Amino acid sequence: MNGNYLEASVKLINQKTKFKCQVNGKEPVVVDYIPPFGDGEGYTSLELLLMSLASCFGSTVKLMINNHLKKQVAGVKVLASGTRKEEHPTSFESITLKLEIAASDLDAEELEKTIQFAKDSMCPVWDMLRNNVEITTENAIILGRGK
Amino acid sequence: MNGNYLEASVKLINQKTKFKCQVNGKEPVVVDYIPPFGDGEGYTSLELLLMSLASCFGSTVKLMINNHLKKQVAGVKVLASGTRKEEHPTSFESITLKLEIAASDLDAEELEKTIQFAKDSMCPVWDMLRNNVEITTENAIILGRGK
Repeated sequence: MNGNYLEASVKLINQKTKFKCQVNGKEPVVVDYIPPFGDGEGYTSLELLLMSLASCFGSTVKLMINNHLKKQVAGVKVLASGTRKEEHPTSFESITLKLEIAASDLDAEELEKTIQFAKDSMCPVWDMLRNNVEITTENAIILGRGK
Repeated sequence: MNGNYLEASVKLINQKTKFKCQVNGKEPVVVDYIPPFGDGEGYTSLELLLMSLASCFGSTVKLMINNHLKKQVAGVKVLASGTRKEEHPTSFESITLKLEIAASDLDAEELEKTIQFAKDSMCPVWDMLRNNVEITTENAIILGRGK
């Protein structure tokens, strides 16, 4: 057991596809598949994957702006959307990440370079999807503090 | 917008790396990175990825036992553990999925075949990590209803 070792457990809690997912000591997350297989009473596994990628990408870019460019970030939003394949396995064919960064002294070129470095070398979840899912990014800088 | 289109949003909610992650109308999930970058006040993005994979794998196997083998499943548990790389990007080098299926009339060979088919053709999250992360499975059948 060390800082590079992580674990999570999931447990079926009804007769269909509803799972309680948890990491020790943290608030459980409920996952359920859509009808008719499940009852849609939670996130789907693929929605969790979008949240994993979006949060990983957003925090990676934010920390790189802070630590490499030595600039402040007042806000970060990422909207992740994905389209599933029609045939099994119905994984994402493509994912789009729309990133909004609120920062008063960041220019477009700095953000572009940061995003490129995040994609290529820094974002772990992106790295695990590489070559399997087409991921595209769009980005915008919101001046001021953002909301 | 259709059944194959999914989206999720994440929004920074403090000055560090704490994000509120959400799909419309569902209970938010809080993500935060570990100190010193964040405060560890939520799941990490990589923990969400483990939950995504474990729930996807568990529900895929469960549904295949129900629908292909026409057998009942009383319980499913998956413990997912992953070891991160030392260097950036610090993605998972390997993930282990320990699966427990509670079923009274399932035999080991049927479960093995089902797992193989889930890996190869049915589990979407597995499919997106293919060739990028070494994923191994261990499995056990628990007789009776399980807990």
